[in-house]
Amino acid sequence: MIIGNEAILLTPGPLTTSAATRQAMLRDWGSWDTSFNRMTQTVCADLLHIVHGTDDYVCVPLQGSGTFSVEAAIGTLLPRDSCVLVPNNGAYCARIILILQRLGISLVELPLRADQAVSAELLVEAFRRDARISHVAQVHLETSAGLLNPLDEIAAVCKQYDKRLIVDAMSSFGALPIDLRHGGIDALVSASGKCLEGAPGMGFVIVRRSLLEQSQGRSPSLALDLYDQYQYMQQTTQWRYTPPTHVLAALRVALDQYFAQGGQPARLARYQHNCEILLTEMRQLGFKAFLPPELQAPVIVTFYAPCDPAWKFADFYQQVRAAGYVLYPGKLTREETFRVGCIGAIDEHEIYNAVAAIARALAQSGWRVR
Amino acid sequence: MIIGNEAILLTPGPLTTSAATRQAMLRDWGSWDTSFNRMTQTVCADLLHIVHGTDDYVCVPLQGSGTFSVEAAIGTLLPRDSCVLVPNNGAYCARIILILQRLGISLVELPLRADQAVSAELLVEAFRRDARISHVAQVHLETSAGLLNPLDEIAAVCKQYDKRLIVDAMSSFGALPIDLRHGGIDALVSASGKCLEGAPGMGFVIVRRSLLEQSQGRSPSLALDLYDQYQYMQQTTQWRYTPPTHVLAALRVALDQYFAQGGQPARLARYQHNCEILLTEMRQLGFKAFLPPELQAPVIVTFYAPCDPAWKFADFYQQVRAAGYVLYPGKLTREETFRVGCIGAIDEHEIYNAVAAIARALAQSGWRVR
Repeated sequence: MIIGNEAILLTPGPLTTSAATRQAMLRDWGSWDTSFNRMTQTVCADLLHIVHGTDDYVCVPLQGSGTFSVEAAIGTLLPRDSCVLVPNNGAYCARIILILQRLGISLVELPLRADQAVSAELLVEAFRRDARISHVAQVHLETSAGLLNPLDEIAAVCKQYDKRLIVDAMSSFGALPIDLRHGGIDALVSASGKCLEGAPGMGFVIVRRSLLEQSQGRSPSLALDLYDQYQYMQQTTQWRYTPPTHVLAALRVALDQYFAQGGQPARLARYQHNCEILLTEMRQLGFKAFLPPELQAPVIVTFYAPCDPAWKFADFYQQVRAAGYVLYPGKLTREETFRVGCIGAIDEHEIYNAVAAIARALAQSGWRVR
Repeated sequence: MIIGNEAILLTPGPLTTSAATRQAMLRDWGSWDTSFNRMTQTVCADLLHIVHGTDDYVCVPLQGSGTFSVEAAIGTLLPRDSCVLVPNNGAYCARIILILQRLGISLVELPLRADQAVSAELLVEAFRRDARISHVAQVHLETSAGLLNPLDEIAAVCKQYDKRLIVDAMSSFGALPIDLRHGGIDALVSASGKCLEGAPGMGFVIVRRSLLEQSQGRSPSLALDLYDQYQYMQQTTQWRYTPPTHVLAALRVALDQYFAQGGQPARLARYQHNCEILLTEMRQLGFKAFLPPELQAPVIVTFYAPCDPAWKFADFYQQVRAAGYVLYPGKLTREETFRVGCIGAIDEHEIYNAVAAIARALAQSGWRVR
């Protein structure tokens, strides 16, 4: 019987969770039982609280990975005659484009480099170029490179130009500050297994109540119908279909720890510290980060691969893995890179140890970094 | 910190899992890691093995509840000009009708009573009445009442009349015998948290390989595209989007126990024994089962509610719940009923104890059963 972790995941979700979070999964819950449904309600209330959601917003949980919630939000909330601007600086933006194409919703891509953030100016230009644009679908933190898009600035422009804004906050929610009171954000999507440090298996959409209530009968999918999910939960307090009970229980306990540790500012501070140690230590080994510091979110760092022609990610991965640290492959199409996450129930000690394992892998293989 | 169960779930999933299955969730897994992807492969191979799937079939796992997999199967495998016969004897059949309606696929409903199983004759009549019918979507075990539809007979007729057959085997898979070698079944859908006694959070579709391979680009949903999920997994060994890692690990360990205990025949024997004890003991309290014995599957039993006008399910539920047993409400529209599950990591002792708790609730409240 495996009990406890045999490796630290330096990946952007699934990530390393705390022992207490995993222990919450040692109990079965009935999906009809009051105790479980009360747990769902407190989880949703806490998720709203993290982003300062007022009564104008509701939180709707959904089974599946975060992408299921992104598709549910787009498929339920957007009228079919919408035209969506998608600033594209990575794979998760590209995934939103795929979703829109499948749903048959018009879109305008705003192509960006993988190391180029969205800006208010670029959005305004796009709005001026194409008057059809009714919505913006924005990835807050593009995990492909680890890039942070300036959400406050984007939300302000969307508010000013009266565009509906759907935010994929998958790997930012809970760590980076998001404040719905500032206005401009219509829907915000994230999942259990990222910066909240829960187990993967459910997502959630925080959405302006009035927008959701206008969305009856719009979703082309039954399972991904956010309106039906919300209505059923309002009427019964229960999930519409079998919920991932253990995953929800883990998220409940992960949220308890989140607040006990100081909430969003404390989570951000820990991740920032992890990220700084990672960048400093890797630099000393000769590694160069792909992003400039001002665009680097303290969530996942993309490093250029060693220039040594003998270097192979799979071998490198296995050597570091053998030392107990799981790295992540790069997701850029042009440059050869790899990624190291700073998030999860880890602190500077895991980062120091992981970089030491990376150093040993380099020394043993004789790979030159530069 | 809650460790371990405080109640036994006599519900048809989520259900009571074994301690070993829950302990498998005490470890985090990287979704890119070979050890995790090997685990996915062995789980899929074992799921195929349970239903005697030959090389003509593949198993595709999917994030979300079982309904997500049902919709993924229908949305991916059925050409949009299909016409689907849906024999309807309960809420899960009705859900398939809703899915077909959302997807814009023609259907013919074969209305049945909640205590009436499908038969070969009824199917043949329907085929003769409507030559457009190309597919049959069949719920194997209608959990609404607990009714078993005769799958072998249905599959034989579909084979004979050359109709594609999609089976929702949600609450039968692993317990009731299903043998793909007999032919006639094109796709079979189930989930982790039912008779396999895993945690809820993922489903799977076992599908004829040739049928799946003809289904590229057909799904109107990205997240629920079974073809894309399969192709990505074939190419990379990985799940397409973040997998519910802990749920898969729990299913792996649940399957190990399943085979160690004797596989499908042993699982069926335990559930049959649980069901017999339940029926016998409840009869002694005066309760009458809704279904005749020949239609009753040993998975969940629907009982008529006590005739006492003072009886309320919510009160009854709370009293039995306080004794440590979670019952399930009825799901029939006409008759007042409640349900008791026979499945999960339980044996006759839990059934005896649950019925004793029911007897105490009756005695304390003074409710007459008949």
